[in-house]
Amino acid sequence: MNGAEALVSTLLGQGVDTCFANPGTSEMHFLSALDNPAMKSVLCLFEGVATGAADGYFRMKESPAATLLHLGPGLANGLANIHNARRAGSGMVNVIGDHVTSHLKYDAPLTSDLEGLARPLSHWLRTTDGAHTLAHDALQAIEAARAGEIATLVLPGDASWGDAGQVPQFPRRQPERAAPPAERVDHVARMIRKADGPVLLVLADRACRGRGPELAGRIASATGCRIATQFFTNRIERGAGRVTLERIPYFVAAALEYLQPFRHIVTVETGEPIAFFAYPGLPSQLKHPEAQLHSLALPGEDGTMALEMLADALGARQAAVPWQERIETPVPQGAIDPTSIAHALAAAMPEHCILVDESLTSGRTSMALTCGALPHDTLQNMGGSIGFGTPVATGAAMASPGRRVFCLEGDGSMMYTLQSLWTHAREGLDVTTVVFANRKYKILEAEYANMGFGTPGPRAAEMMEIDRPTLDFVSLARGMGVPGVKVDTAEDFHAAMVRSCAESGPALIEVVM
Amino acid sequence: MNGAEALVSTLLGQGVDTCFANPGTSEMHFLSALDNPAMKSVLCLFEGVATGAADGYFRMKESPAATLLHLGPGLANGLANIHNARRAGSGMVNVIGDHVTSHLKYDAPLTSDLEGLARPLSHWLRTTDGAHTLAHDALQAIEAARAGEIATLVLPGDASWGDAGQVPQFPRRQPERAAPPAERVDHVARMIRKADGPVLLVLADRACRGRGPELAGRIASATGCRIATQFFTNRIERGAGRVTLERIPYFVAAALEYLQPFRHIVTVETGEPIAFFAYPGLPSQLKHPEAQLHSLALPGEDGTMALEMLADALGARQAAVPWQERIETPVPQGAIDPTSIAHALAAAMPEHCILVDESLTSGRTSMALTCGALPHDTLQNMGGSIGFGTPVATGAAMASPGRRVFCLEGDGSMMYTLQSLWTHAREGLDVTTVVFANRKYKILEAEYANMGFGTPGPRAAEMMEIDRPTLDFVSLARGMGVPGVKVDTAEDFHAAMVRSCAESGPALIEVVM
Repeated sequence: MNGAEALVSTLLGQGVDTCFANPGTSEMHFLSALDNPAMKSVLCLFEGVATGAADGYFRMKESPAATLLHLGPGLANGLANIHNARRAGSGMVNVIGDHVTSHLKYDAPLTSDLEGLARPLSHWLRTTDGAHTLAHDALQAIEAARAGEIATLVLPGDASWGDAGQVPQFPRRQPERAAPPAERVDHVARMIRKADGPVLLVLADRACRGRGPELAGRIASATGCRIATQFFTNRIERGAGRVTLERIPYFVAAALEYLQPFRHIVTVETGEPIAFFAYPGLPSQLKHPEAQLHSLALPGEDGTMALEMLADALGARQAAVPWQERIETPVPQGAIDPTSIAHALAAAMPEHCILVDESLTSGRTSMALTCGALPHDTLQNMGGSIGFGTPVATGAAMASPGRRVFCLEGDGSMMYTLQSLWTHAREGLDVTTVVFANRKYKILEAEYANMGFGTPGPRAAEMMEIDRPTLDFVSLARGMGVPGVKVDTAEDFHAAMVRSCAESGPALIEVVM
Repeated sequence: MNGAEALVSTLLGQGVDTCFANPGTSEMHFLSALDNPAMKSVLCLFEGVATGAADGYFRMKESPAATLLHLGPGLANGLANIHNARRAGSGMVNVIGDHVTSHLKYDAPLTSDLEGLARPLSHWLRTTDGAHTLAHDALQAIEAARAGEIATLVLPGDASWGDAGQVPQFPRRQPERAAPPAERVDHVARMIRKADGPVLLVLADRACRGRGPELAGRIASATGCRIATQFFTNRIERGAGRVTLERIPYFVAAALEYLQPFRHIVTVETGEPIAFFAYPGLPSQLKHPEAQLHSLALPGEDGTMALEMLADALGARQAAVPWQERIETPVPQGAIDPTSIAHALAAAMPEHCILVDESLTSGRTSMALTCGALPHDTLQNMGGSIGFGTPVATGAAMASPGRRVFCLEGDGSMMYTLQSLWTHAREGLDVTTVVFANRKYKILEAEYANMGFGTPGPRAAEMMEIDRPTLDFVSLARGMGVPGVKVDTAEDFHAAMVRSCAESGPALIEVVM
C-alpha cells in the first residue's frame, strides 16, 4: 500500500467518505487512491467551492469531509471559506498536495511557503514525514476535524507514492464535550432568580438545535427571560413545532436598542455580542454599559447539557415550552420587497428544507417572518467572508439527501464562488439558488452612510454599483447546466420556488428587485 | 486631510493612478478618498481578478497599480494571483482594509491573522501605525512595488479616518538595476569562445523585450550559440521584425531532449531550467548532467546591459541580427487541432496585440507557429496557479489602450476567475477571450500517465473530466455582458478573432475541441 492509499484507507476507516476535490499534478497518486468505490469524490471547479462545501457538510452531518487542494495557491483559493468554516466551528481535513520533497530546493514555479499560508487558519497543521507516518498523521487530522477544527495535512508527492507498509485500523473516537461546572450553573440560576430586570439568554452552535431551544424555552417560560441568538449562527433548527429564538440585529444602532433593556446576558456556546464592524463614535460592545455577562457554556462546551442543568437548578424542567405555532402565510402578490420576499419564502418552504442565507441586504427581514414556516434549518455566515453561500449549500445538500436546500444570495455575493452551480448540476443536488438582484453592493451603501459620509460621490458610488453591465444570472446558471428563471413579482417568486421543489436537481431563481 | 486621503494623494503623487478594487465596509474611507478624478478605480467582482489585473498592468506598464482588498479573507482570495505576480516579478501595492484597531480585541467575525496571511507572499508588509505615518508607509510600499515587489499595506479603519496632517510631496525615485560585474561577463565570453559544443543562452524577464533579444541574436550570429527562454516568461516581445527565442519544453522528457546537446548554459535574469513538477524516476534538473551553468545576469539585474557587455566582449555588436521574417499564414480550414489553432492565431493576430496564454494543453503548439506573425507581446504564467489568464488580460488591457488582447484559456482554467469578463465589459476593454473547450483537465490526464499510472480508473477519470454538465461559455459570457460565439472549425475560429478585432470592447470565443 502506498502513502496515498494508506491515507484514503484511514479516512474511510474513520468514516470520512466524502472528498471535495480540485486536484492537480502533485495529487495524482491521491487521485489514483480515490478511485475507491467507498469514497465519494466531488469535483469542484474552484477551491473555494471545495472548502465551503466541507463547511456545509460538517454543519449538517456533524462529522467532517476531506478536501483535496493543489499546493499553496490551491489552498490560498480555499482560505476565505476555511475562515468562514473556522468561525462556524466546522471541522474539515484539508489534504494539500505538495511538491516531491527533493524538488523543493529548486524553487519550482508553484513552490510557496505552504505551511505559512496554512498556519493562520489551521488549528492542526502538519507536513507528513513520509508514507510510513501518513496513517497516523491522518488519524490525528481526522480527530481534530471531528472536534470542529481545521486540520491541514500537507502531502508531498513522495509521501504519496512511498511505501506505507502495514496500515493499522484505528478505533473511532468521538470527541467529548465538557459539561459546565456546577458552580457556574448555580451562579447563573441565582442571578436569574434575583434579577429585577429582563435577562437575555444568547444561544449558539449546537445549543441552537436538538433539545437546546426547547430547554431554553422552558427556562423562558419559568423565569420570563428572553432567548435569542447572535446575528449569525452556524445552524438553527427552527419553524413550526420548535422554539423560536430572537435574533440580535446586525446594524449597531438596532442592536444597541435591542440589548438596551438587559442588565444580564447569559451566553451559551458563544461570547459577548459584538459589532461586526466598528464605526466612528459607536461602541464595539453592543450590550448596555451596565449589563453583566454570564457565561453558562463556553464555546466548545456542551451547551445543551448546560441548559438542562440550568433548567434543573431553576425548577424549569416541567415548565411550558413556548412551541412555535404554524403560521400559514398566504402567497404574496405584487411588488418584490423584503416583506414579500419573506412571505413568499415562508409560503414555499417545504418541510425540513435547509436555508443557507447569504442574502445580506434583501434577506434581513426573512428570519422574523419565517418563524412559523414548516420546520427547517438555517445556516448563516459566521465568518463574514463573502462567497460562502453556494459552496455551503453544496456541502449541505451532499450531507442531506432528500432535503431541499434554498441558497439565498445577493447578486454581489453570488459572483464570488458561482462555480458551485456546476457541482450542483453535476451531482444532481436539490439546491434552489435564489439571487436577489438589486444590482449593487447595497450593504456598502448603508455602511458608507454609517461611516458618516452620507451619499457617495460619483466615483465612489460606481464602486458599489454592479448594474453596468447587468448580470444575467439565468444565463450564468445555464452556462453551468442549471436551469434558471427570472421573476419580478412576489407570486412568480413563490411559484418558481414551489416548482423547483417539485423536481429533483438544482435550479436558480433570479429575483429582480 | 484624513489618512485615506493622504494615502490616495501619495499614490497619485507617485504615479500610481489605477486601483483594482473589491471594497468592503472597512474600506469606506478609502473609497471616499478614491472619489478623485485623477484615480482610475476598476471594480472587480472577485479579489483574484484585482490582483491578477495588477500583475498584467505591471507587465505592460513596468510600473505598479494598487489593489484594494477587504480584510484577511479578501486578501486570501487574491493570494493565488499574488503568487503568480510574485513569480513574474510584477510589483503591486495591495491596500488591505482592516478593522479599527480598538475593535480587534473583540475578535469580530472577519478578524483573522491578516499579517500572517500576507507574509508568505509579500516582499514588503506593514500595518500602518496610524494616519500620520500613512504617507511615508505608502511611499515605501510604492517604491518596493516599483522594484517588482509585492507590497502589502494593512490599513486599519482608524488610520483611514484619523488626521494625517500635512502630507509631503515625495520625489519619484526609479529603481536602478545593477549591471553584472565585468569579470562575470569576461568569464562567460571566454567560455563561449572556447566551448567545443553548442552553448545555450536562456533569457528571461526584461531581457526578453526591448534590445535584449536583438543583442542575443547578434551574439548567436557571431558565436553559433542558441538563444531561448524558459517555458514560462512574464513578457516576450516577438513576431516579425524581432528576434525569435526558442522555448524550453514543458514536459520533462522533451525538455531533457532539448537540453541534451548543451554542455554550457548561460542564464540572463533567470536561473537553472527546472522541471515544473517532479516525477518518479525523472530528474528535477533538466540540463545534461555534465552541463555547466553560467549566470550572466541574476534575476533583478540588468540583463540587457549584460547582453550588451557580452556582445562587446565577443566583438558581436556589429554581427548580423537574425531578424524574424514575416510568415504569412494562410487561414486554416477544417478541424480544430493544436496546429490549426496556432495557424488561425498567426493569421488573425493584429499588429501589437498582446497574447495572454493560459491555454495549457491546447496552446502548447502556438508559440512555435506564431513566431512570424505580426509583432506582438506574449504574457505567460510564471507561478503556475490556475486562474491567471483573464485577470492578467484585464490589467494588460487597462495598461495598453489601443492594443487588442487575446486571452487564451483552457476550459478548466477559465472557470477559476471568470468574473474578469464582467470587468472587461464594464471598462469596454479590447480583450478577446478564447476558451479551448476540450471538456477535461487534459493536462492532468497527461500527468496521470507521467506518474506511471496509465489510464485512470472510472472514479479517478471523473475527477479530470468537466463534460458533465457541459460548460456553455457563450452563456457564461452573456451573463456578464460579453458577447460570445461558439466555433468548431479553424476558419470560423479565425473569422471570429478577426471580427472581434474589428469592434471595440470585449468578446469571447468558445472553441469546441
